[in-house]
Amino acid sequence: MSKHEKSKVRAYLTTRKVNPENQESPIHFFDKTTYPHSCLFRRNHFPYPDYISASFVITGLVQKPLRFSLEQFQSMPSKRVKAVLECAGDKRNLFVPKVYGEQWEKGAISQGCWSGVPLRDLLQYTGLLKGAKEVVFEAQDYGKRKDIDQTVPYARSLPLQKALHPDTLIAYEYNEKPIPFKNGFPFRLIVPQWYGMASVKWIKQITVIDKQFEGPFQAIDYVYYPNKDEDTGKFPVTLMNVNSTIQQPLNMDILNTGNHMISGIAMTGQGRIAKVEISIDKGKTWSPAKLEHNDEYAWVRWKYLWEVQETGEYIILSRATDTAGRTQPGTAFWNRKGYGYNAMDKIEVKIE
Amino acid sequence: MSKHEKSKVRAYLTTRKVNPENQESPIHFFDKTTYPHSCLFRRNHFPYPDYISASFVITGLVQKPLRFSLEQFQSMPSKRVKAVLECAGDKRNLFVPKVYGEQWEKGAISQGCWSGVPLRDLLQYTGLLKGAKEVVFEAQDYGKRKDIDQTVPYARSLPLQKALHPDTLIAYEYNEKPIPFKNGFPFRLIVPQWYGMASVKWIKQITVIDKQFEGPFQAIDYVYYPNKDEDTGKFPVTLMNVNSTIQQPLNMDILNTGNHMISGIAMTGQGRIAKVEISIDKGKTWSPAKLEHNDEYAWVRWKYLWEVQETGEYIILSRATDTAGRTQPGTAFWNRKGYGYNAMDKIEVKIE
Repeated sequence: MSKHEKSKVRAYLTTRKVNPENQESPIHFFDKTTYPHSCLFRRNHFPYPDYISASFVITGLVQKPLRFSLEQFQSMPSKRVKAVLECAGDKRNLFVPKVYGEQWEKGAISQGCWSGVPLRDLLQYTGLLKGAKEVVFEAQDYGKRKDIDQTVPYARSLPLQKALHPDTLIAYEYNEKPIPFKNGFPFRLIVPQWYGMASVKWIKQITVIDKQFEGPFQAIDYVYYPNKDEDTGKFPVTLMNVNSTIQQPLNMDILNTGNHMISGIAMTGQGRIAKVEISIDKGKTWSPAKLEHNDEYAWVRWKYLWEVQETGEYIILSRATDTAGRTQPGTAFWNRKGYGYNAMDKIEVKIE
Repeated sequence: MSKHEKSKVRAYLTTRKVNPENQESPIHFFDKTTYPHSCLFRRNHFPYPDYISASFVITGLVQKPLRFSLEQFQSMPSKRVKAVLECAGDKRNLFVPKVYGEQWEKGAISQGCWSGVPLRDLLQYTGLLKGAKEVVFEAQDYGKRKDIDQTVPYARSLPLQKALHPDTLIAYEYNEKPIPFKNGFPFRLIVPQWYGMASVKWIKQITVIDKQFEGPFQAIDYVYYPNKDEDTGKFPVTLMNVNSTIQQPLNMDILNTGNHMISGIAMTGQGRIAKVEISIDKGKTWSPAKLEHNDEYAWVRWKYLWEVQETGEYIILSRATDTAGRTQPGTAFWNRKGYGYNAMDKIEVKIE
């Protein structure tokens, strides 16, 4: 019997929870620019919706409420953005002290091409009424939370300015195919630069309101609470922090002396990545990594050739800086719910 | 569109490395007694063999060297054992200080039913010559190691006594089907009670020898080295330690007050599991968990109903004891290559 299909190796999603489904992407084993949908990370607060409507309505403070269908969408001018989506809880398990909740490692992040109609275009059809302040996106998934004794849908809002940004899309395609069911079919809001909680899946209704939205996924979750036992100093999770991840080598790898390619990704919610630096001496000295294509909204792949002759134990750090002047800190900003972890990435390797 | 196939959720293998393939089983999401082969953990030192022979030879210190084929096997009396296979490196990432190598979490373990012919029966056909001391099992996978400048096969030996144990099998079926390619097709040695490195896959040749086998997977790897920088005090990895794993709840889960079922598995390489105890007060007091079927060689599923009324943070510990009188320690025996981790299992949860 010769070598066959059965010896093929693939990387799988890493299962964090099955009910509801929460799975990480195999970030360390992925060197493409866009993920196939089977490798998109899955972050759910509720079971998948039982019933999916093939249209959604825009209502509230609009001149003319309108319903939009997939058929209509396909005849409207569309736009495509390659965007990284990163869960606000990505890397949560790295916080010290530890934080409760899904223990995401480094793979609550994916990237691909989303095509859709800018929300701004749709709001030009409906018109806006005076006093419009926020736009609320209600999803088709719903359920009970541990802290509220009633069934609630997943819902989030955007301030009007971000809602009207020309790259804020109501997407209906992922990598030029209908959005996979688990990732929001048929309509998903895509908010480049914001953490993934903003990119609401399975859109059911869009409502323009004149005040601040106070749903639990906005007023309770996805809020930075700097203190363990009280809510003082809280502020909302919005833009992605500047961040980087070392994909290869793996943490605690044993390698030989010689040349090793250190490679990874870097991303930011403000501007673009300006540079990625690598340290192999615990942060004493830094050398620039080589960046590949550097598109707005997308992650930058980077690599650094490490020539190592001396055996021993090494700590490798990666540190990204964005064009807004933000640099990854040595220690992440600790917050009670564990959002926005972005300390310099760190791995340890042993050279034998 | 109604709810369909696409909303089904499954747990995947957790990818630790793709070349060679190393993947964990989704241990926290599995409540069956036997794993389907898609969920068996995969631990490889080398790429999958290019070519698989459908027979193997028994040679060395035997009266009559013989070759055995799958056809012959199917006409011989066979035996079935339900056995847990646990990688010696299971839970390696829990060692403090950290240990280099694949960072296995708690899923380098699986269980299923292996059918095959006792090696003892085969050795009755070949006969043994005087001086026979060990039996060497050479696999069909091979490659280069970082520490030896030549190509070597994966090979391990058993002392004659263990080789002749009536439950040491040359298996050719897993869960009543041919062994999956990645798990050792067509012939795999199954050594109940020993860590998984002993259960050699893709058997190519079995050789009876008169001395101690010194292959690198026996004399270098799969050896406990108690010291970081020197080899003194080393001893071989053989029998599984007594061990337990809490499957549910998950570490760092947030739960409500009320009743929660704490559940998991326990296993040992000596005798059977005598008891599993649970502590929810950091080890001050212990309560017995309820054990399910308790077969030799297999893991025991256990559960404990936890009634919790008070909100706060809790540490839950599980501690197994076997009929050989071994109990899981509070701290695992640290060793340089990170084998045999068996400290009491520990998770933290928050009750809100």
